[in-house]
Amino acid sequence: MSRFGDATTIKQVDEGRFEVELDGDFGMAEAVNGGYLMAVLGRAAVASSPHEHPVATATTFLRAAAPGRAEITVDTLKAGRTAATARVSLAQGGRTATEALITTGTLDASAEPTYTGERPAPWLPPIEECTEFVPPEGLTGFAAQMDLRYDPATMRWLEGRPTGVPELRAWFRLRDPHGNDAAALALAVDALPPVALNAGARGWSPTVELTWHMRAIPAPGWLALHGSGRLVTGGWFDEEVEVWDSAGRLVAQSRQIARLGRG
Amino acid sequence: MSRFGDATTIKQVDEGRFEVELDGDFGMAEAVNGGYLMAVLGRAAVASSPHEHPVATATTFLRAAAPGRAEITVDTLKAGRTAATARVSLAQGGRTATEALITTGTLDASAEPTYTGERPAPWLPPIEECTEFVPPEGLTGFAAQMDLRYDPATMRWLEGRPTGVPELRAWFRLRDPHGNDAAALALAVDALPPVALNAGARGWSPTVELTWHMRAIPAPGWLALHGSGRLVTGGWFDEEVEVWDSAGRLVAQSRQIARLGRG
Repeated sequence: MSRFGDATTIKQVDEGRFEVELDGDFGMAEAVNGGYLMAVLGRAAVASSPHEHPVATATTFLRAAAPGRAEITVDTLKAGRTAATARVSLAQGGRTATEALITTGTLDASAEPTYTGERPAPWLPPIEECTEFVPPEGLTGFAAQMDLRYDPATMRWLEGRPTGVPELRAWFRLRDPHGNDAAALALAVDALPPVALNAGARGWSPTVELTWHMRAIPAPGWLALHGSGRLVTGGWFDEEVEVWDSAGRLVAQSRQIARLGRG
Repeated sequence: MSRFGDATTIKQVDEGRFEVELDGDFGMAEAVNGGYLMAVLGRAAVASSPHEHPVATATTFLRAAAPGRAEITVDTLKAGRTAATARVSLAQGGRTATEALITTGTLDASAEPTYTGERPAPWLPPIEECTEFVPPEGLTGFAAQMDLRYDPATMRWLEGRPTGVPELRAWFRLRDPHGNDAAALALAVDALPPVALNAGARGWSPTVELTWHMRAIPAPGWLALHGSGRLVTGGWFDEEVEVWDSAGRLVAQSRQIARLGRG
């Protein structure tokens, strides 16, 4: 089992009730990552459903979740033939940290897309031309788990030269190899730094709400992440992430609304 | 009060509990419109919050809601200084028809956007060049309430000539004048025919999940709706709608995942 597989393992304790040990290495400081939480919630939804894939996951982030034990509650709202929907929440010490409405369905691995819009391939450079941040020896935490290779054109905000356009692009995989399952996609849609950093924002940007859709079963290999945003205004910004697999298919889409960091 | 104002009036019956009389004229056949339901849920969320605007609304549609009495329950999950979050559900006869996670905040009417991406103005023709479907005398139902003026380039699917690209564009207002408030935006993000009709789909496409964000307080006047989609595959399609106001500002964004109609 991979490190991430271990970190997202849930234990059923009753009908619709699970426990998980949140792994601090999928987080920063005393808070675990939002994509990691969505991966865990998705596993609980699928375990409680006749369907295999979290097709739609609408998540609200209420409070930070800390490493350690957490309780997950799954309330089934509808169990249909094509899709089932559940309310899934994760709590620590009796306080809900995050809650999601998750619709599960079973995606067809052989389904051919009839429309995929513009292919992003032209504007993400080959992996060997991308920027890698090699974690220092002994580094733990989220950055040490992720292997992200950034399009250098979208990373000049690091040198104080944001492009002015809220976009970020990177190749993605886990350092400790983990297959491209739904849990990996949940991590991928929230793995990029905030796109608002390229619109002049600074510091940490708390995600308030994130909805993501699993659109296809991803092929093995690197995933391409394309992050963008439409509007930064009044302290709020949106961020969209598309995840494309090595077969050139759009496998996940997300949009989040977040608060600008206070720098 | 406008017809739509009446139709979205909620009556508080207890703490976190409201009643509404769903108006069949904001629906088709025996089901009311999803945007109308989101407008009602948003009103209940705001009525239970210290904040004025539904900034993020993530909605799951479980069962059709019929015209007539419905009960709304608001469970506050977090009441913060910048944002509050509630779980809001609408039930009829004890069965939940739709449930949403709604984050409220107070948008600043004077906030200047620092980034709005490409302006869509160039590709939505002036209203007088758009196609209007004048409802026949005596027609009731959703189509009679909406005043939509379609970009003719996106409407050839009506003549059996879909463009092949899942896009639809239209100007929007209510026939019985109603101000551009949050409730009108909730209606607007779900007012277009399914964009998949331009990708060869036929018939009614049930929305499974729709998340929308209110990004600014809209100016009076016509709203411009830009609907698009990225992928139709395995019976599922996504639809994004951007709503722009007469001052040229992006005021709402949505994405929904829906099932293809069976023709």
